[in-house]
Amino acid sequence: MTQPFDDAELGALLDRIVAAVLPTLGQGKVADYIPALAAVDPNKLGIAVTTVDGRQFVAGDARETFSIQSISKVFTLTMALELVGDDLWQRVGREPSGTPFNSLVQLEYERGIPRNPLINAGALVVTDAIVAATASNPPIKAILDFIRVRAANPGVRIDGEVAQSEKAWGYRNSALANLMKAFGNMKSPVNEVLDTYFSQCSIVMSCADLSRAILYLANGGTDPLSGEKIISEQGARRINAIMLTCGHYDASGDFAFRVGVPAKSGVGGGIVAVVPGRMGIAVWSPALSPQGNSVAGTRALEQFTAATGYSIFE
Amino acid sequence: MTQPFDDAELGALLDRIVAAVLPTLGQGKVADYIPALAAVDPNKLGIAVTTVDGRQFVAGDARETFSIQSISKVFTLTMALELVGDDLWQRVGREPSGTPFNSLVQLEYERGIPRNPLINAGALVVTDAIVAATASNPPIKAILDFIRVRAANPGVRIDGEVAQSEKAWGYRNSALANLMKAFGNMKSPVNEVLDTYFSQCSIVMSCADLSRAILYLANGGTDPLSGEKIISEQGARRINAIMLTCGHYDASGDFAFRVGVPAKSGVGGGIVAVVPGRMGIAVWSPALSPQGNSVAGTRALEQFTAATGYSIFE
Amino acid sequence: MTQPFDDAELGALLDRIVAAVLPTLGQGKVADYIPALAAVDPNKLGIAVTTVDGRQFVAGDARETFSIQSISKVFTLTMALELVGDDLWQRVGREPSGTPFNSLVQLEYERGIPRNPLINAGALVVTDAIVAATASNPPIKAILDFIRVRAANPGVRIDGEVAQSEKAWGYRNSALANLMKAFGNMKSPVNEVLDTYFSQCSIVMSCADLSRAILYLANGGTDPLSGEKIISEQGARRINAIMLTCGHYDASGDFAFRVGVPAKSGVGGGIVAVVPGRMGIAVWSPALSPQGNSVAGTRALEQFTAATGYSIFE
Amino acid sequence: MTQPFDDAELGALLDRIVAAVLPTLGQGKVADYIPALAAVDPNKLGIAVTTVDGRQFVAGDARETFSIQSISKVFTLTMALELVGDDLWQRVGREPSGTPFNSLVQLEYERGIPRNPLINAGALVVTDAIVAATASNPPIKAILDFIRVRAANPGVRIDGEVAQSEKAWGYRNSALANLMKAFGNMKSPVNEVLDTYFSQCSIVMSCADLSRAILYLANGGTDPLSGEKIISEQGARRINAIMLTCGHYDASGDFAFRVGVPAKSGVGGGIVAVVPGRMGIAVWSPALSPQGNSVAGTRALEQFTAATGYSIFE
Repeated sequence: MTQPFDDAELGALLDRIVAAVLPTLGQGKVADYIPALAAVDPNKLGIAVTTVDGRQFVAGDARETFSIQSISKVFTLTMALELVGDDLWQRVGREPSGTPFNSLVQLEYERGIPRNPLINAGALVVTDAIVAATASNPPIKAILDFIRVRAANPGVRIDGEVAQSEKAWGYRNSALANLMKAFGNMKSPVNEVLDTYFSQCSIVMSCADLSRAILYLANGGTDPLSGEKIISEQGARRINAIMLTCGHYDASGDFAFRVGVPAKSGVGGGIVAVVPGRMGIAVWSPALSPQGNSVAGTRALEQFTAATGYSIFE
Repeated sequence: MTQPFDDAELGALLDRIVAAVLPTLGQGKVADYIPALAAVDPNKLGIAVTTVDGRQFVAGDARETFSIQSISKVFTLTMALELVGDDLWQRVGREPSGTPFNSLVQLEYERGIPRNPLINAGALVVTDAIVAATASNPPIKAILDFIRVRAANPGVRIDGEVAQSEKAWGYRNSALANLMKAFGNMKSPVNEVLDTYFSQCSIVMSCADLSRAILYLANGGTDPLSGEKIISEQGARRINAIMLTCGHYDASGDFAFRVGVPAKSGVGGGIVAVVPGRMGIAVWSPALSPQGNSVAGTRALEQFTAATGYSIFE
Repeated sequence: MTQPFDDAELGALLDRIVAAVLPTLGQGKVADYIPALAAVDPNKLGIAVTTVDGRQFVAGDARETFSIQSISKVFTLTMALELVGDDLWQRVGREPSGTPFNSLVQLEYERGIPRNPLINAGALVVTDAIVAATASNPPIKAILDFIRVRAANPGVRIDGEVAQSEKAWGYRNSALANLMKAFGNMKSPVNEVLDTYFSQCSIVMSCADLSRAILYLANGGTDPLSGEKIISEQGARRINAIMLTCGHYDASGDFAFRVGVPAKSGVGGGIVAVVPGRMGIAVWSPALSPQGNSVAGTRALEQFTAATGYSIFE
Repeated sequence: MTQPFDDAELGALLDRIVAAVLPTLGQGKVADYIPALAAVDPNKLGIAVTTVDGRQFVAGDARETFSIQSISKVFTLTMALELVGDDLWQRVGREPSGTPFNSLVQLEYERGIPRNPLINAGALVVTDAIVAATASNPPIKAILDFIRVRAANPGVRIDGEVAQSEKAWGYRNSALANLMKAFGNMKSPVNEVLDTYFSQCSIVMSCADLSRAILYLANGGTDPLSGEKIISEQGARRINAIMLTCGHYDASGDFAFRVGVPAKSGVGGGIVAVVPGRMGIAVWSPALSPQGNSVAGTRALEQFTAATGYSIFE
């Protein structure tokens, strides 16, 4: 076995990783399905780590905010599991999808039950569960509040321009939601669920924020800094398992193979990752692989687990 | 966090698990596609652990031999990676399949490239790679020798009756192999690959054998008892990642969610699992879920990781 | 060969067919996805023939009106071909779909291009073409006027209750339209196309009306009674070919096999058929096969072509 | 309506068609999956007509022989229907496939029941039915004899070189047959069915032969020249219906749209067609469309029905 990594060197490691990955920027393609995302500078690269004992390390553009997009699905999944418990699994599976992230094919073959909560269809079911359970309150406010507290940053906000664009161009998500409605797997009005979903995807945060916000999943479901229990130990393990198997659309297997930690990507170029028992990590670089995952972000995480030995597979 | 588990109690734990799971036998259905498997007693239950420091614990029917079936795919994958290196990944992917284990659909859409090496199509490619690289020698002999040494048991053998039955009823695997041949992804003659594959699936071993044989994957690729390096650290991590994401056909996500360790099942009712850094585990109980995985074996492993906290997700 | 049928006996034949089929009513199931259709009496049975020389024969409930549903697709296809010509075939194919009538699977694989204009997705494209070309006018008025003139009956109307129900429960059609919009194959606003489509499906007519309205397709594109040219000879032939290969969803082959004339069914229980050079036919009986086609209506048509020898295949 | 065509002009018409189509040769691609087919001169073009009253007209290379390939499926379907009757439809459907001609996808979803008897999988079932019913005799001899008598040409023969090549490269058909065997829809040994199938595809005939051989389908199932009843009137109608809806793989709808008569193509570049009540037609030109149908042959037939008005849709 290799020599154990001394985490006092985390700051220096992040600097080295940014320095090593920066020259390789230029691969991949920034998401361009809406103008607000297409305008993002592809040369951004940030990485942040927050440890369960409260230290934070950052490098590159780790304090710039970006659109978290599908990373929001991890937080809404946590909320929905707390709101409705295991009943959620009647409405959404937990198997890798094996098909591109926005596919309707599988959804139709499986009669409106999405494969897992981290593909778009499954995340719409999760958001519907939150909408249905928070009727007295704008559900998006509950989601935003949850993420602000997790990030310990009341400045986390929704980018209204992105949210409007998402809505204006959200035909495919509308198709997914309508199809599930047709199969009886959408309880609230389709438009209300879509509006909430587009807003949650439009939340902007920094790597520093995200690495702090995800910390409860590195610590058995309890925020190690505030002491607040967010979800059960078993619940945290299960969300980590789902991130590992389903967190990168149909490149999830490749990410597990190369990086080896639970993580979730978003088309804004962010990835949030968890080293169980140790730390939350967030990276950001906007240019995406064909599967929709940050190219440089994945490479940075690959170097991180190679250098630290923090893969869960050894 | 829960109290750390003291592994001196492993023997007592295995006994408790067998005692707890035995009364629940009776769910699931023994594989019946060939007579030799259909005749197996569904009430068998065994579990064995071998630790990286060389201790072995067994309970129930852990010393009875059974047909390892698809568990053999982990050993052939190890061999093929050593024989041809990363070129193997030109011929087989490493993504979960998202469809039943013997599906031709995906294989056709993806033009003869199987999704991963642990589904039947992918395992046929892996066996073809071994056949092509061991031309001077019966390839099945090389496979059997590899497993015997891993298990430190020269008595490991092929059940000829099972092998004959597999061959006589192997129309679907023949369809898979011919389809890949049509796409140019089968180098050796179809019948030679099928014969080798049916023979490797017909190897019989005990839980004790298997928990010993898999130990190199719990120890960074090196057999901790013999000191022999079987595969690189990175290679071991990667095989563990593939087992985690793809080891239980289209119930792989559910297994990760419930159990949380890399593992591979076979339709003979066996499951082999790895706790990285600690131990190899094998369970056996012949009755299968609709997805083809041992019902009681999965339950035993679920209790094991719950009791020990050895899930890789926490 | 059999003795040629003397069409002076058409009236008597229709009576015999109704008498023969009436006792077999009771198979199939009335469409129940909206209350207005579910309430229809399943014991209705009507048949009407209008010949190219202007004679009309009716039997059973041939003068009662019913919801024409997908039969409207033949009339809108005719209109769209006149409005945009062969450009329409850039947006919709003319191959049988081979999958259930409302499947999104094929639409996604073929990137938003529906297989043919007689499945729902294709009919939505056709309606979109009409909406886009009749911007100055409510497009549904143009469609209704076209059908009124074809039927020579200004009393043909839209059932507002059915139209409202279709809209309230039209999630799957909304999914189809949104998916095509996502692929760039929907020019007008999704809701405007859906409203028009739901209204055209809610038109109510009798068998007598329909057998008259379809007459232009039995006469090379020209209404034989008014002399008005509706579409070119080639256009009429082509619509007949599409009805033959695609007119009964994924039971089109079976209908061709059993009946052997171009025809289009609707989930209201109607079927309109064409004997080229001779006559238009319409039948109505509300109980449907699993594929969505009138059970008794198909049987009546089967008896009709068997008795007359009017199959196009001999 | 257009002026009726005087069939005394058939000879002159065929000459004009060959003259008009010859300059357009050069599109499409000769089948190259086996050397024997790849070597065929792409510039061949022949057309032949045999009328139900016994006249024969030929133009171009109509007397040269070529590999009939899938055209043989029409003759084996006729034989199988006579041998086993409607029971055949328990084992094969009669719906268009909607997918490429050699797809395993649909076969797997529909559990080993091919969509129709004119795609490869369905034709293998048909051949299996013949093999099972002619056990005392080499089944390929029965098939060859049937075709020789239909063509009134004892010189019709099997090209042994093509048959050997088909067998050596027939992995995909082997995959289809093995998959159906796995589903229980293949009664005879897989290899015996494949050998027979590859041989029937390797029969060589001329356009003149084929237009004569298919004549019974233009005459209600009875050979009009010999008076022999080959199949019932209903049976002939049904085979014509299946040719119309399924005879050109997933371009069947397009062929019906453009040409409008029942027909079956083969990858050797031949097409056989039927004008019910009038004549059999055969064309040959080896270069194929991406769907596997003769480009120039289709064009020649399109001109033929346009000039004669013999489309069944008007």
